[in-house]
Amino acid sequence: MSSHKHWLLPEGIDELLPEQAARLEALRRRLLDQFGAWGYELVITPFIEYLDSLLTGAGKDLEHQTFKMTDQISGRLLGIRADITPQAARIDAHQLCCEEPNRLCYIGSVFRTRSDGFSASRSPLQIGAELYGHSGVESDVEILCLMMATLEMAGVENVFLDLGHVGIFQGLARQAALNAEQENALFAALQRKAVPEIRSLVEGFGLETGLAQMFTGLASLNGKADIMTRARDVLAGADAEVHAAMDYLEQAGQHLQSCLPELPIHYDLAELRGYQYQTGLVFAAFVPGSGKEIARGGRYDDVGEKFGRSRPATGFSADLKTLMRFGKPFPMERKQRVFAPAGGDAKLEHRIAELRSQGRVVIRHLPGQPGNASTMDCDAVLVEEGGDWRLKPV
Amino acid sequence: MSSHKHWLLPEGIDELLPEQAARLEALRRRLLDQFGAWGYELVITPFIEYLDSLLTGAGKDLEHQTFKMTDQISGRLLGIRADITPQAARIDAHQLCCEEPNRLCYIGSVFRTRSDGFSASRSPLQIGAELYGHSGVESDVEILCLMMATLEMAGVENVFLDLGHVGIFQGLARQAALNAEQENALFAALQRKAVPEIRSLVEGFGLETGLAQMFTGLASLNGKADIMTRARDVLAGADAEVHAAMDYLEQAGQHLQSCLPELPIHYDLAELRGYQYQTGLVFAAFVPGSGKEIARGGRYDDVGEKFGRSRPATGFSADLKTLMRFGKPFPMERKQRVFAPAGGDAKLEHRIAELRSQGRVVIRHLPGQPGNASTMDCDAVLVEEGGDWRLKPV
Repeated sequence: MSSHKHWLLPEGIDELLPEQAARLEALRRRLLDQFGAWGYELVITPFIEYLDSLLTGAGKDLEHQTFKMTDQISGRLLGIRADITPQAARIDAHQLCCEEPNRLCYIGSVFRTRSDGFSASRSPLQIGAELYGHSGVESDVEILCLMMATLEMAGVENVFLDLGHVGIFQGLARQAALNAEQENALFAALQRKAVPEIRSLVEGFGLETGLAQMFTGLASLNGKADIMTRARDVLAGADAEVHAAMDYLEQAGQHLQSCLPELPIHYDLAELRGYQYQTGLVFAAFVPGSGKEIARGGRYDDVGEKFGRSRPATGFSADLKTLMRFGKPFPMERKQRVFAPAGGDAKLEHRIAELRSQGRVVIRHLPGQPGNASTMDCDAVLVEEGGDWRLKPV
Repeated sequence: MSSHKHWLLPEGIDELLPEQAARLEALRRRLLDQFGAWGYELVITPFIEYLDSLLTGAGKDLEHQTFKMTDQISGRLLGIRADITPQAARIDAHQLCCEEPNRLCYIGSVFRTRSDGFSASRSPLQIGAELYGHSGVESDVEILCLMMATLEMAGVENVFLDLGHVGIFQGLARQAALNAEQENALFAALQRKAVPEIRSLVEGFGLETGLAQMFTGLASLNGKADIMTRARDVLAGADAEVHAAMDYLEQAGQHLQSCLPELPIHYDLAELRGYQYQTGLVFAAFVPGSGKEIARGGRYDDVGEKFGRSRPATGFSADLKTLMRFGKPFPMERKQRVFAPAGGDAKLEHRIAELRSQGRVVIRHLPGQPGNASTMDCDAVLVEEGGDWRLKPV
């Protein structure tokens, strides 16, 4: 035995043993089938790409999260995907040339150099759906409904939703003619809802009182649907762009609420998750007891531009392992397990094939092996009686 | 647009668009279900591990094939798995502590710095099954039968099988007291069946005539079952270990042939695929038109030793993408696709949920979108008639 324990896994990297793996596989199939029923078609994207492709467009803020290595064949830098969304966008933009809306879904491991936002994991099993080619509330709401249906299918209960629109902050920043550095500082303070810090920042920028008040007010503009009334007041002096974003947010929330009347929706006008590439509505789903969101998404128009085609886009993603952790386990089908002799005549082989095709698990008894039918977790044995092979309960 | 085309993928790295991805997913499910019916339980192993764990035991000859990078958290070297077999062995040895035989299966992408033996791909989708805890012909034959059932399920036809046993060459090498360098040189020549080279090597080693003739003879000991008779002749002067290996090979072949009478079995006493970690029977499946094997496996006892437990082991693996390429496509279920309005009343939402739960695909018509029911590949539309939502063929 060498000095390292060879069975230790790196921090944030896990493996699934049979019981968990069977659960995950069952959930995987249910979710992909549901995506399919909504018209979302599976794509399988590569785990490794040229680094500059991975970091193009929607991937540009993933650089420090991306594992890198050199390709011995091309000499170029390769990266391990830290997010599948930019890959799906590449496929829509470059491989699928239709003008109609495209609905794609995916499932696959992503890796990050440090723990990600979904969990303490560095290897989330990312599952998601993306809708390309339509601008408007209807496609955002479709994605939101699919996200909620996904959480429901995964047995996740008591979900509440944060809903925001990056156009509100973006519009105010433009109106105030903030430079990139100022915008980033304010953005960071808003993410923490640190009002005194926001106040001192806007003062330092020398903004006129109206704008300063609007930025400061943003931090407290969160709550149920009626917060929108107060938002109109607080942001009355904002440009048309900001008002259009508020209209959109309100409309999307109303549309969603009419589809899912029971869903607690929390409006947050300073919700800026994924601000680097989101372009409109943004949302995140939470459950009590999870410090972080368990699913998130939003609009990210024109992300395909670098891949040759600019299209509207909206989507969501989640970590299947997180969903499994927070979801109520659904009952797993228990198949009958049959213990059968190893070597045998053609009749035995035929009978075993038949039992397997009928949905039973047949395990061969290997000569001299430790264990019997019950330690092998079998509830029946196959025994010969008068030339026939018959099932007998253990 | 930068100078690189952002949609180009590295050599030997591919992605699957919806039609292929749907086929692969269907095949994946069929194969995992079949593994399950044979008692093989799914494990999900990590894509990235500490390099020294990946290269332990069965993985030791994978070093130059393994992508490496530094872990920012631990400062240690990480590797991307180039093979799942050693990971499954680690799980059997360390995580699953039963004394009974364990049957595990897996599916997952592996990556290699250069193209692998299965295909021109550097990212095979490895699928395989492993049986731990039993020594003997019955477990090898079970794995062989499962490999053949896997190929059949994948629609691969006209398969022929190469069957060998590394104990034959190993025994002769020990009898001849070859050092590692000599053994490797002879091994390489035998792999190419380069008789003149073998002759000059054994001459150079100064082997006695009997041993020299046995090594040279090995290269032509391949053919149908009757080759075993000639093998007994040619290798008459070999140690008991070599005879035991020949007995084992013959017995396994007969047992397999009795289960699969139609399977063409090609015995090859110089078949040494995976010699670095195989310890007994070795086998590979071929089809006309594939230059390389499409599935392979064998016995690799005691591979778990480094992970804390030494167990007999036998297994096989294949690349699912290769199987898909060589397999006859099976008919895919075509679901009815329904085009339905986007926004709507509760009755419409209810009807759509119902249609989806009945196995139909329902695609929402997004306001202002390009395309209609038929360009969206739908064969029915949902229309309101007298307050009810009804399906109408397109």
